[in-house]
Amino acid sequence: MDGSLSAPGGVSGPGRLAGPEEGISVQELALAARNHGLPLEALRYDVTPPGLHYVLVHYDIPATDPDGWRLTVGGRVRRPLSLDLDALRARPSVTRRVTLECAGNGRARLTPRPVSQPWLVEAVGTAEWTGVPLAELLAEAGTAEGAVEAVFTGADHGVERGVEQDYRRSLPLRVAADPARDVLVAYAMNGAPLPPQHGSPLRLVVPGWYGMAHVKWLHDITVTDTPYTGFQQSVAYRIRTTAEGDDPGTPVTLIAPRALMIPPGFPDFMSRARVVRPGPVPLAGRAWSGHGAVRRVEIGEFGEGVGEDGDAVWTDAVLERDAAHPWAWQSWRTTWTATPGLHHLAVRATDAEGHVQPLAAPWNRGGFANNLVQRVEVFCTPEAATAPDAP
Amino acid sequence: MDGSLSAPGGVSGPGRLAGPEEGISVQELALAARNHGLPLEALRYDVTPPGLHYVLVHYDIPATDPDGWRLTVGGRVRRPLSLDLDALRARPSVTRRVTLECAGNGRARLTPRPVSQPWLVEAVGTAEWTGVPLAELLAEAGTAEGAVEAVFTGADHGVERGVEQDYRRSLPLRVAADPARDVLVAYAMNGAPLPPQHGSPLRLVVPGWYGMAHVKWLHDITVTDTPYTGFQQSVAYRIRTTAEGDDPGTPVTLIAPRALMIPPGFPDFMSRARVVRPGPVPLAGRAWSGHGAVRRVEIGEFGEGVGEDGDAVWTDAVLERDAAHPWAWQSWRTTWTATPGLHHLAVRATDAEGHVQPLAAPWNRGGFANNLVQRVEVFCTPEAATAPDAP
Repeated sequence: MDGSLSAPGGVSGPGRLAGPEEGISVQELALAARNHGLPLEALRYDVTPPGLHYVLVHYDIPATDPDGWRLTVGGRVRRPLSLDLDALRARPSVTRRVTLECAGNGRARLTPRPVSQPWLVEAVGTAEWTGVPLAELLAEAGTAEGAVEAVFTGADHGVERGVEQDYRRSLPLRVAADPARDVLVAYAMNGAPLPPQHGSPLRLVVPGWYGMAHVKWLHDITVTDTPYTGFQQSVAYRIRTTAEGDDPGTPVTLIAPRALMIPPGFPDFMSRARVVRPGPVPLAGRAWSGHGAVRRVEIGEFGEGVGEDGDAVWTDAVLERDAAHPWAWQSWRTTWTATPGLHHLAVRATDAEGHVQPLAAPWNRGGFANNLVQRVEVFCTPEAATAPDAP
Repeated sequence: MDGSLSAPGGVSGPGRLAGPEEGISVQELALAARNHGLPLEALRYDVTPPGLHYVLVHYDIPATDPDGWRLTVGGRVRRPLSLDLDALRARPSVTRRVTLECAGNGRARLTPRPVSQPWLVEAVGTAEWTGVPLAELLAEAGTAEGAVEAVFTGADHGVERGVEQDYRRSLPLRVAADPARDVLVAYAMNGAPLPPQHGSPLRLVVPGWYGMAHVKWLHDITVTDTPYTGFQQSVAYRIRTTAEGDDPGTPVTLIAPRALMIPPGFPDFMSRARVVRPGPVPLAGRAWSGHGAVRRVEIGEFGEGVGEDGDAVWTDAVLERDAAHPWAWQSWRTTWTATPGLHHLAVRATDAEGHVQPLAAPWNRGGFANNLVQRVEVFCTPEAATAPDAP
């Protein structure tokens, strides 16, 4: 269970907000360097190639051994289970293409900035996960009358704000045991055994929920009749709106809608501004929402001289829907006419429930679910190049 | 060839140094999020698993098609070549295990900080590369009398400090054509086709040299009789010691010695300080140098209360050498006795030529080859835990 670590303040201090002019700290940089995002040009792949899918490891990638691995299912169940990987692989499997996003995506774009994993917009990926439906395992174990949640424990162990812990999260049974939610106990990613950083040898996949729910290096499922209130459930991953963060907050759950643009043209190394030639420029990207299908994607262009805070003119993109992959991002495309000069584009998604990405971020203390629209700076050269653009 | 891009200042500005109290900028953060390092616990793998090897993409990962790919070898050669992947794969191949490091590793630890890809210590990886020896291709093409260099062109296209370019670097022929240097035209990484971010479908591998030499998405080799002076050869990747960076500098070439420690115990999420229990703590890690074998690895412990600038007490670790893999990192190990309190450890390598990692960084304008010793903060709890540590 969780323990309290008494250490000098710098070792495991409380969460904090960055000062008004404070740049990214060395600690935030270290997190950015080890937990990487999806390079945005890789949005072009329907399924994110290995090594490009975003990674978020709270503590360390644990050294796990598939051979000795067991998944125990216990607590308020009639028939506790203890399954090794062979037993799991012997069961009928399902494969689901799922778009996953870190709950902290967008955090570093908030002011004041919560000091934590400093994501911009790139904490995303889409993979095909293969495993056993959790609903079937829970049915096999037989959840008891009065059971309300399933608590999932992973092997990654560390300390966070003074609390020593294994990474642990719960799901309400109405989600965990609902076959329609497609929650998986997964052992393969894109047809191969899970890579170390993605949870080898076993993980949870909860389609439509932010990444904190998808417990990696999963080894225990305990069914409970009281709600779980451990660190990652009641301290972290809450939407709190006071500056002190002392309200109980609301839980972080379903992924808020987001559209991302494959950056057009070619980039400047440092600024990541895009360079295009005059004329029609194909724009494309992806959009998704944990609340259901995305029903609209719009491209915005901010007026010249108005800058990032001005009004934008929005036009609809063509949005596709792949019925075979309801949990995966949808593709969108349009054509934009580039004229010489500096342009500020944006893209926003609206989902089937009417949630739309905001232009200005509603703030919360933990920096969660900040689905502010993506801004893309595009410089159009004065004339078409004589040399061909790079492929 | 390179072109000049005329654009508003913010799009493709000159290189700059960060101000004295300036934290990491949003631009540096964006680079950190897309070009990731090796999570240090992954030093435990002899060969870095896919997705954990560091990545450095100057512009974008280009969309390449192996089917249409051709490698041309031309310029000052008697028999120009044009080879597709089948032709390259048909030739006798070699496989070499190589430790690779980004020339900018350590840059973000310099003061003043050159504003660029902000690496700490993690820009490292070891992989097994399979391909055709470059020396054989050059012999087959027959380099002309008076030829001095081979210029390598990759498909990644972008703009950098106002210079529009394909990524392009040269090697002196005495390196490129020397069989003992084991320079490879590689098409596989760890037994599989190159991933997109590592140069698919073809790249150069130059064992012992920093990463900028290992041109990815390689499609052309041109042998020249004059030295190449393009952007990545004469503007970037030079060791310059004036603050203005206006001296011609010396070229960045061989990897400076470095040792890294697998962080012991378990981490705090935010500070990445390590937590251990009292008693013997096994320490292990890797060490390498482009100048030859590492002949010594020492663990340093800074005195209590002295802090990071004080003298350390150094003790030797046991260092291994795997004769089968001369271009790959060597393993080291030792045991450290942890006593309650906060400790500051360091690790340093000395190579066969006598180069030793410094405690204080010699500064250079581009932030290259900063092989300052790694520092590890370790907190030892007051007593042994009753619960077992996590695996």
